[in-house]
Amino acid sequence: MSNERAVVLLSGGLDSATVLAAALDRGLVCHSLALDYGQRHRAELDAAERVARSLGAADHRVVKVDLRAIGGSALTADIDVPEQAGTGIPVTYVPARNTLLLALGLGFAETIEASRLLIGVNAVDYSGYPDCRPAFIAAFRDLARVATRSAVEGTPVEIETPLIHLSKAQIILLGMHLGLDYRLTVSCYQADADGRACGRCDSCRIRREGFATAGVPDLTRYT
Amino acid sequence: MSNERAVVLLSGGLDSATVLAAALDRGLVCHSLALDYGQRHRAELDAAERVARSLGAADHRVVKVDLRAIGGSALTADIDVPEQAGTGIPVTYVPARNTLLLALGLGFAETIEASRLLIGVNAVDYSGYPDCRPAFIAAFRDLARVATRSAVEGTPVEIETPLIHLSKAQIILLGMHLGLDYRLTVSCYQADADGRACGRCDSCRIRREGFATAGVPDLTRYT
Repeated sequence: MSNERAVVLLSGGLDSATVLAAALDRGLVCHSLALDYGQRHRAELDAAERVARSLGAADHRVVKVDLRAIGGSALTADIDVPEQAGTGIPVTYVPARNTLLLALGLGFAETIEASRLLIGVNAVDYSGYPDCRPAFIAAFRDLARVATRSAVEGTPVEIETPLIHLSKAQIILLGMHLGLDYRLTVSCYQADADGRACGRCDSCRIRREGFATAGVPDLTRYT
Repeated sequence: MSNERAVVLLSGGLDSATVLAAALDRGLVCHSLALDYGQRHRAELDAAERVARSLGAADHRVVKVDLRAIGGSALTADIDVPEQAGTGIPVTYVPARNTLLLALGLGFAETIEASRLLIGVNAVDYSGYPDCRPAFIAAFRDLARVATRSAVEGTPVEIETPLIHLSKAQIILLGMHLGLDYRLTVSCYQADADGRACGRCDSCRIRREGFATAGVPDLTRYT
């Protein structure tokens, strides 16, 4: 066992729970971090806490950021969540969300002297968000090399994206292999207070297809 | 007059007020944004609002981010603000603050379709924070070129740092030339509720020396 610390960005969804399970499996001491950005799907935050506790994170923190002050997304503003995938970048895109998440994760990593920051972005089965692409991650990695005290002192925080080239089905198979119970997670953009998924939004559709392709029973609770 | 919109990050301090004055002078329609990160010096936030209103920003928003959840700085955690400049990066450094500020500014710029994002970082008379250096800004500029919807669609938000190579005295002279009343601003890390400065912290010292070098009377109210 190493005592190496890592910050894991944990949304409460399927991908980030898999990242946490895999990081714990590597022996990293994981501090999970969730962002309460005034999202519609508050059940996600409950799921993040449940996942952290159940999997054995050393610590779970929630940072509140009131993104409604700057609006701009169906997930934070008064715009309907669409039930059909459109073309281009969807209205559920939250402006600069991953930049913000990584910035907070970087600050947290620096504070607790974690050497790694893990995020579950995925460039295969994803919603077309600009800040899930490998080019974005590469640019943030370069930023992290100059942005912090630890970087100046010679040990920048490493940004890791273990899922970036996996399909949703591959992610699910990895999680199953690690014993992860996906019933703990919530992917739906408009889950009810009890964490039950709508089964119709883009995120539900991608998740459902992932289970089908993986040949794994989908135990997600739908409304 | 153009109708070009810009987001100006406004802390309530001397530098960002000068950035706003200069941007308005160029005819940009300025939307200012302040970060309420649980800082000790709340008087800064009052100052930001006062500066935005007095100078004529189109809009002023405050985004609350509870950075105390991740700790790590004398400005947010229970660490004393030092009254002597030390060596290296000071304890008043807030982990990843400018990364976070720029991330929020980028999201806001995207939401209101602003073409520019201005920040008053300065690499001459500054406190030695890693995220005030030109290398950091260059890396964030590269990030902005891939991070957003507008970037993907061919018009990334331009990151501008009009003060980066100016001395504190030059910044003050620029502001005076633009008619800026620096009594509106608060630089002190531990200003009282009424906005009066301690006169002893690192930020007060840099500000005071700036006025002295510029040969301009320092009308800052000290306790």
